[in-house]
Parts: sequence; C-alpha cells; structure tokens
Amino acid sequence: MMRSTSSFMARLLEVARDVETTLEGLLSDEARSGEIARPSRLMKALRHAALGGGKRLRPFLTVEVARLLGQDAPGALRTGCAVELLHCYSLVHDDLPSMDDDDLRRGRPTVHKAFDDATAILAGDALQTLAFEILADPATDPDPAIRADLVLRLARASGLGGMVGGQMLDLAAEGRYGEVRADQAGIRRLQAMKTGAILAFSVEAGAVLARAEGPEFANLSAYGQALGAAFQIADDILDREASAEVMGKRTGKDQQKGKATLVDLLGMEEARRECARLVEQADSAVAPFGDKAEILRQAVRFVVERET
Amino acid sequence: MMRSTSSFMARLLEVARDVETTLEGLLSDEARSGEIARPSRLMKALRHAALGGGKRLRPFLTVEVARLLGQDAPGALRTGCAVELLHCYSLVHDDLPSMDDDDLRRGRPTVHKAFDDATAILAGDALQTLAFEILADPATDPDPAIRADLVLRLARASGLGGMVGGQMLDLAAEGRYGEVRADQAGIRRLQAMKTGAILAFSVEAGAVLARAEGPEFANLSAYGQALGAAFQIADDILDREASAEVMGKRTGKDQQKGKATLVDLLGMEEARRECARLVEQADSAVAPFGDKAEILRQAVRFVVERET
Repeated sequence: MMRSTSSFMARLLEVARDVETTLEGLLSDEARSGEIARPSRLMKALRHAALGGGKRLRPFLTVEVARLLGQDAPGALRTGCAVELLHCYSLVHDDLPSMDDDDLRRGRPTVHKAFDDATAILAGDALQTLAFEILADPATDPDPAIRADLVLRLARASGLGGMVGGQMLDLAAEGRYGEVRADQAGIRRLQAMKTGAILAFSVEAGAVLARAEGPEFANLSAYGQALGAAFQIADDILDREASAEVMGKRTGKDQQKGKATLVDLLGMEEARRECARLVEQADSAVAPFGDKAEILRQAVRFVVERET
Repeated sequence: MMRSTSSFMARLLEVARDVETTLEGLLSDEARSGEIARPSRLMKALRHAALGGGKRLRPFLTVEVARLLGQDAPGALRTGCAVELLHCYSLVHDDLPSMDDDDLRRGRPTVHKAFDDATAILAGDALQTLAFEILADPATDPDPAIRADLVLRLARASGLGGMVGGQMLDLAAEGRYGEVRADQAGIRRLQAMKTGAILAFSVEAGAVLARAEGPEFANLSAYGQALGAAFQIADDILDREASAEVMGKRTGKDQQKGKATLVDLLGMEEARRECARLVEQADSAVAPFGDKAEILRQAVRFVVERET
C-alpha cells in the first residue's frame, strides 16, 4: 500500500509540531542541572533562531528512520531536535554581515538584525553547544555508547571536514580569498560538506538509535547520501528560479556573488536529470525495506520538488 | 615533602609541551574518519588560534588531577586538549570586532586580524566542534559512559548557563543593552559562568577520568570552584595593574568600558584578601589528599600570583 502525498505532508507537519514543542522545552529560561543561570537576552535570541519556522526536515528524517526500524522512543525526537539546533546555529552564523550578510530568514529578520552581531555570534555558539548537550544526555538514550556515538558522528558531520569546512569553501568560492577554479568535483565536495553531511547524519542517527547494523545500516546510509546530494542540487535550481517572496529569504545569491553552481556547469536540464537519478538512487537504497520505507521515498521527492 | 615552585613550573611547562604536541596532531590538514576534506585556510586559522601560546592551565589541571588519583593514561591529555580548544574558541569569538574588539592576543594578532572576520567565526565554530569530537572519541577513554559524561559536563559548563551565557552577561555589563546595576552577587555570578565553570570542569574532568566518587570527587570539585573564583579576581587585579606589554593583550579594558569589577566594589586590598581566602579554601579542599596534592596547592598559588 502506497501512502499518498497528503499523508506524507500530514506526517511532516506532525513531526514539525512535536519538534516545536520539544524545542520550546529545551529553550526555556530556566537553568538546568550544571548551569548557573540563563541570560534572558540570549534565550530570546535562541528562541528567535530556533522556534516558529522551518520544515524541520532533519528531525523528520531521524524520527522516520527510527520508526521504520520499529524504534518509536522519544530519543529520536530529541536527537532530531539536536540536529535542528545545530542547523539553526549554522544559519545564524552564516547570515552574519561578515559571512553571507542576510537580513531575512524564513520571512523574518535574521538574528543579528533582530538583536545585534554579538548576540547572534553567542546565540549560534550556544545552539551548537546545546545540540551536543542534548545528544550526551541520558534522556536521549539509556545506553551511553549510543550517546557517545551520536556525538562523535554529529561532530564529524558538522566540523572541519563537514558543515563548517564546507562553509569555508563556500566563502572561498566567492573569490574573496583569491581566484578559485570551480570544477564539478570541487562543487560536489563543497556541497557534500556544507549540507550533505548533516542530512546524512539525520538519517544515520535514526539508524544508530534503532541499533541498525550491517546492510540495514549501509542501505539507510546510502539513502541519506543520495537525499543530501539531491537536496543541494534542488537548492541550486531553486536559488536560480524562485522569488524571494516565496523563499522567505534572498534568492539569486549565487549568481550575484559570481559563485558557480552545478546548474551553471551542467545546465538546468542536466541538473534536473541528476536530481531524478538521485531520487532513483535513494529509492533503490531503501528498496529492501519494502512498503515500510514509502515515507522515505516520499521524503526524497519532497526534497527535490519543494518550492522553498 | 613539599615540591618547590621551580619543580611546579617545570611540570607546568612539561604538560604545556605535551599539549602542544597533541594539538599539532589534532590540527593537521589531513582529514579523519567521517570527514570529507579539511580546507587549508580554516586549518591555518585554527592553528593560529590554538598553537604556540598560553600557559595551558586548563589541560594542566585535568592532567594533574588524574595523576593525583593514579590515572596517567593519555585520555587526560586528550581531555585537557579538548578544554584548551574550547577555551581557544571562546577567545577567538570574544576578540571579534562586534564583541570585545581586540587586535592582540598572546602578543600576536588575533585570528580576525591575521585572517578575517568570517574565517575567525568559522574557526571558533570548528574549535568548539573539535572539542566535543575529541571527548566522544574512543581514544579518550574506552568506556563510553565516561565519554558521554565528559561531553555533557563540558556542554553545561560552556553553554547557556556557563561560559557563553557569562560572555552575554559581560557584554550587557558594559551597558550596551541598557543600564545595568552591578552588584557583587551579579558580578560573581557572571564570573562563575564566564571563566569559573570551565576551570571547574578542567578539574572535574580529571576526577571523572580517574573514576573518583563520593567525597573524593566532591573535594576536588570544591578545589576547582575555589581555583576558578580565585582566577577571576586575580584577573581583575591584573587588568587594573599590569601593562599591555607584559600581558601580551590590551589591559585596563574593564575601566575603559565602564564595567564594574570586584576590585571596584571591594577595593584592591579586600580583593587581595579574598584571593588569599580562596587559596585557603582550595588548600583545605585538597587537604585529605596529603602531600600528593602539593602540585594542586602550587597551582592555585600560581593562578593568583601570575603576572600574565
């Protein structure tokens, strides 16, 4: 039995609502064990950065992969929230004037616009810390080996050789540190680091929580890789085509900054074909799970067909 | 038998040398497991931020506390390096123009001066991530429960209710977000968050690695609290008295920014007496360890008597 797209959207919204509730709890003013006090300006900035927006695609992937494997524990939701906070930290820092210099995010002022640069830097820093704190907390999983594994994987996906390293390459791709030759291999590596690694983590985290091993783990991991790659090409296509009004953020940025994207190198038609191939790759990776994986097949289609 | 101050200094330098060697390995250009590639500009900025300087007081505390308890494993050195990287991340971000706006650190240009603001933001972000990655890595301790515990403690000491929260309060204390009333309790809370929590973690981490429990753990924890408090008052005294030449960074900053310190509220004489009381507190916390704890007694004296 195939689920319909509308039941996919219903499930996406349901997880997004659960994520919002969980994040509200995590971002309260009240200090926790091991903390002295939480400064209210900082907490306001964190809530501005993390609440009330976004499709919550990363937590959705973690929750749905865990569910597919029969793991319906709250740990997947907490882990998904940790990834979401990490994602939000990267947005807050990337939006800063010295980075991508964006005033608008999800249709609202960016954190440094709503507050100030110093508060935005600290808010991003604290969001990153909180992501690791959540993963290491026994409430996420009773087994410390699982928690330590999640911390290690998220750190590798988001650090020097992952998200942050990818953002460094992305700034360099604008030519601000000297001329760079943009070839396909370089752009693909940049994208795999900047966005792919965290999306792949979101999928793997669900598998880790559900104690998946061997081919089961490898298949889900391959699904995450394909989805991550599809996401970024779709992003390049959207950046070229969509209006700022629909996106809730500035578009056409890459062209303005003279940054080459895969759309430039491949052409729009071939970029779309590559998206389609990646969707097939994702499908075949989860084929062994049968009908149970229908929601993951819907997810990768959602990623390439979304309009924001 | 009491160790002499010169043997304390020899040991401090020995640990600093070990820290340098370990950090050089951790900050190499070569990508590790789970990483795609390490961008060279980012790695240069990280090495600029973390190598070739500093007393390495935090790693020293971790290593010496573990040694006191008979734990001489490389895990203490790795854990100490994680704290040092976290400390370096906070310096890189605090030095940024929108934060404390400092051009000089340890007698060298700050990271945003030697590189640029964007690189400094990303370097700080990556240093934080790397700190958590090191703690979660099996090379730090074979027991995942110990690793998860270290991650959780460091996150709590450095996040919203710790170091980052303290920096937010510190910016607010300059009056940039409206007038603030500086009372003793407020300044003490700010200092405990901004610097005290990480110093206390450095001590506790050694105890965690050595499987200390009960009164043993509590005594070392009390030592760490006293040392942290002593450190900050000594810092306030130094900021008032030392020259930029000796400190290798701008001094007299608090006065320039109209920030009240404990020296203002207590007077110099009473501030010195409080330092002495905290040294006594630290001494009595480690009294049950006898002669073995002599190096920790020397450490707290070093903290209050240092000239940089």
